[in-house]
Amino acid sequence: MFCFVLFFGFVAKKVLIVYAHESPASFNAAAKDAAVATLTAQGCTVEVSDLYAMKFKAAATTEDITGGVKDAENFSYAKEIKLASEEGRLADDIKKEQEKLKEADLVIFQFPMYWSYVPAIMKGWMDRVLGFTYAQEKRYSEGIFKDKKAMLSFTTDCPESVYSDTGINGDINVTLWPLQNGILNYCGFQVFAPQIFWDPATGSPESRSSMLEGWRTRLQNLCGEATVYFAPLDYFDKEKGFLLKPEVKEKYASKESGLTVGIHMGKPLPANSQTKARV
Amino acid sequence: MFCFVLFFGFVAKKVLIVYAHESPASFNAAAKDAAVATLTAQGCTVEVSDLYAMKFKAAATTEDITGGVKDAENFSYAKEIKLASEEGRLADDIKKEQEKLKEADLVIFQFPMYWSYVPAIMKGWMDRVLGFTYAQEKRYSEGIFKDKKAMLSFTTDCPESVYSDTGINGDINVTLWPLQNGILNYCGFQVFAPQIFWDPATGSPESRSSMLEGWRTRLQNLCGEATVYFAPLDYFDKEKGFLLKPEVKEKYASKESGLTVGIHMGKPLPANSQTKARV
Repeated sequence: MFCFVLFFGFVAKKVLIVYAHESPASFNAAAKDAAVATLTAQGCTVEVSDLYAMKFKAAATTEDITGGVKDAENFSYAKEIKLASEEGRLADDIKKEQEKLKEADLVIFQFPMYWSYVPAIMKGWMDRVLGFTYAQEKRYSEGIFKDKKAMLSFTTDCPESVYSDTGINGDINVTLWPLQNGILNYCGFQVFAPQIFWDPATGSPESRSSMLEGWRTRLQNLCGEATVYFAPLDYFDKEKGFLLKPEVKEKYASKESGLTVGIHMGKPLPANSQTKARV
Repeated sequence: MFCFVLFFGFVAKKVLIVYAHESPASFNAAAKDAAVATLTAQGCTVEVSDLYAMKFKAAATTEDITGGVKDAENFSYAKEIKLASEEGRLADDIKKEQEKLKEADLVIFQFPMYWSYVPAIMKGWMDRVLGFTYAQEKRYSEGIFKDKKAMLSFTTDCPESVYSDTGINGDINVTLWPLQNGILNYCGFQVFAPQIFWDPATGSPESRSSMLEGWRTRLQNLCGEATVYFAPLDYFDKEKGFLLKPEVKEKYASKESGLTVGIHMGKPLPANSQTKARV
């Protein structure tokens, strides 16, 4: 409890779990339930957005904006939804999720990986609920949610080797980049290392129990965890196409590896930079 | 025409465009229309799946499987949809898309990039229509669609510099990996280099016309294009966690860069390997 007070900086810490699995008997359901129980026992208020149960609308459409769009000719969902958000003209289901998000200190996305990414229904939550942040001036380390934490927690249907830098699916750090940098970091979230449950379906009941026990233990100690490293906004020159500033390039020129997975500067990727926090 | 005959290996070439933009006045609509007109003029049969107009269901749910799921306890969408596909128990809208896909020699995905990825409605098409291929034994270079070509064609709302290896969004080659390798290559598709329309909304009408003209010209000459390189399936040892075989690692050990973006072997990424074909 004291730990969380220190961590979030205040007593009333709130967690939003965005959850995407249909089956209450699934491992994902068990992981979600374990998070609810563990965090609640630590004094957190936990809210769950159960996307399938809510029949959450995944497609980002003009129906998300009440009162019509401003520029149908050059329709931009990001721009229209930002404007609609400022004018209070968003669809009710988006407003409700945004209220939960506004309250949350930590957002956990719990899902089974579908095609090396979140399932469509969860991408729909990201497109529609986070969409208003996209066209803002404030982004990345200055992003709207810079005082919040976020974390991906997911199951795979293959062992870890398959997602290594010599495995057939390729380095999981590469796979996670568009999600963790392109969405979470873009919005400003400080991103905890992902919780990856490697192929729970193939293992024994004991191995699944052990995975869940590890998850509970991690959640009990989350307050002490550092977050994943991303390059800060002021490393980039807004006037020059958001490229790294010359002095930053120079500073990192002699380093053996790049800055991050995406901003690799033609060098080897920093090892495990999307799966481990930088301490 | 002759060119296409050589390219696809037979006369009756068919193209499926999976299209995700709501506005008929958008640049994406213009790009889709240009593709339909240009390919039709070359003798192709072009089918368009206009996802928003079809109100395509994005969420992958148990409703996609008629007659109930086989294993609710350990529900796996990929396994259930594969089984349902074999038994003819898929929802009608999936069946219809799969029929189009079966006929197609080339599939073009036309979309505005949302959050460094396809919009949720298109991810839904991938989850639901391609889902049955996921749990197959045949994958990657032996994948079900190995005789078909595929291509991403998309708009961004930022200039190219932003998606470079020193730009704030990071190397576009990294961003494309989960889509082009994790989905298209996994299914066996030979993947043409993506058609990227950099920030058409910000440019002048002339620059947009010029982009579309470039797209038409490219489509007229697509037959001569090589595809993006991916490591073949037989580079990996199925019995040992789908890791690169020792002889393959040895073969590439002295190379300066990794094999692909994801299978980088701790070395710098091969330049532009997801955005340029290997000739």
